Amino acid sequence: MNRAELFAQIQKKSSFLCVGLDPDVAKIPAHLLSEPDPIFAFCQAIIEETADYAVAYKPNIAFFEALGPRGWETLQKVQEFIPKDIFTIADAKRGDIGNTSKLYAKAFFEQMEFDSITVAPYMGQDSVTPFLEFEDKWVILLALTSNGGSMDFQLIKDEVGKPLYQSVLEKSQQWGNPENMMYVVGATRGELIGEVRKIVPDNFFLVPGVGAQGGSLADVAAFGMNSNCGLLVNSSRGIIYASNDKSFAKAARNEANKLQEEMKDLLGKYL
Amino acid sequence: MNRAELFAQIQKKSSFLCVGLDPDVAKIPAHLLSEPDPIFAFCQAIIEETADYAVAYKPNIAFFEALGPRGWETLQKVQEFIPKDIFTIADAKRGDIGNTSKLYAKAFFEQMEFDSITVAPYMGQDSVTPFLEFEDKWVILLALTSNGGSMDFQLIKDEVGKPLYQSVLEKSQQWGNPENMMYVVGATRGELIGEVRKIVPDNFFLVPGVGAQGGSLADVAAFGMNSNCGLLVNSSRGIIYASNDKSFAKAARNEANKLQEEMKDLLGKYL
Repeated sequence: MNRAELFAQIQKKSSFLCVGLDPDVAKIPAHLLSEPDPIFAFCQAIIEETADYAVAYKPNIAFFEALGPRGWETLQKVQEFIPKDIFTIADAKRGDIGNTSKLYAKAFFEQMEFDSITVAPYMGQDSVTPFLEFEDKWVILLALTSNGGSMDFQLIKDEVGKPLYQSVLEKSQQWGNPENMMYVVGATRGELIGEVRKIVPDNFFLVPGVGAQGGSLADVAAFGMNSNCGLLVNSSRGIIYASNDKSFAKAARNEANKLQEEMKDLLGKYL
Repeated sequence: MNRAELFAQIQKKSSFLCVGLDPDVAKIPAHLLSEPDPIFAFCQAIIEETADYAVAYKPNIAFFEALGPRGWETLQKVQEFIPKDIFTIADAKRGDIGNTSKLYAKAFFEQMEFDSITVAPYMGQDSVTPFLEFEDKWVILLALTSNGGSMDFQLIKDEVGKPLYQSVLEKSQQWGNPENMMYVVGATRGELIGEVRKIVPDNFFLVPGVGAQGGSLADVAAFGMNSNCGLLVNSSRGIIYASNDKSFAKAARNEANKLQEEMKDLLGKYL
């Protein structure tokens, strides 16, 4: 999917919601455990009920990988079940030397037809660029994450006072462009989203950390929105685990709808 | 496997060789393609012929992941085929927020019983420590990698002139210890291995970049060896693709043997 198609979806649905699929066998409703593939049944129901409000789905690959080979079959089924007009993100945080990154790219872009993959920048240019060679596919590069450990290295200032995440943004601008590169920018640091937006005015941000992790959607929009929206705001647990009884999918729908309505107002305000 | 057991293997075999398993269907000998599982057949033959000289095997997870769900079944078979007294490294370069890293740890340490996994440090402490909670299991943290892109961020100096990879070494010393944490330190920068050794005197290093990438084994030993050897030097392509006819496994054996003899001399010189 290209940027114009993504923006068209955002306008059509008045939403920039990404639903994170972190399906944990220990947390899904008990009645699903008798299904032949409980994790698929769970994701299928969540997708069916939230697709009206979501412009992206983000399966967290670890949750599938932890299930062994069957987990990969489930992941493939989930990817195939997502409606084709909705953007898909393999949240895999991969990154390795060139020929290895290329294989990861093939796994997620060709074998499974994801639109995008999250990539870690530590190994530099030749670990990132192999993912950029696929038409209408995207790298979502970790810049400023929403976890506590993001302070350990991402905020280290260099000799001229520039924090590491800014070096990641600046250097990676030479590798990709707003048509094939997005950035992970955590919602837990509202004011920093504005700093990031100044450096990369046109790229989309994937924003985790709204909801369970404490970030404010209004702040994200105020600091981060651009003329193409430029935001995909992720919610995982707040939506998919809104309830764990038989009404879980309807509860997920309600939570997604609430976020979408807030997003509609913000799109009206800033676009 | 714990550190004493690993060192005992190094002494017994007079070797600190890690054989990297990067099995590419496009590169393995053509006669294997008629096997029910060509990649397994290839790895099995390589392991059988090199096990006398190797103290570690390092499957590169991307090569298996690129094959889809069947690739994971093959990986599991390869892991199970490796003799139990040989150290196993899942070269996966994972790293994500806490609960997600924990799932990756379960996938590689419990589902597949690898001894260790390579981890990327960009997301900081809470992305690394979940891997450290498993007894006799190891994190191998990326510090200074051997690829060209390692220059992009790993060598950026902070306000007091300390390069990023040194911050990674120093901070991570507070998270793990020489019994559960190793570091990836590329062989392509001989003099820097000595710098790393000063900061982390007791930890093992996993050293890629000898052979195909141009690093010198003698330099690695001179700058990096400690009283427990402290080195696992990886060779992948130089061994597994030494030949691609029917004698490929014997050719791999010969290459592994050559490296082991050089290692034996270096162990005699420095230990």
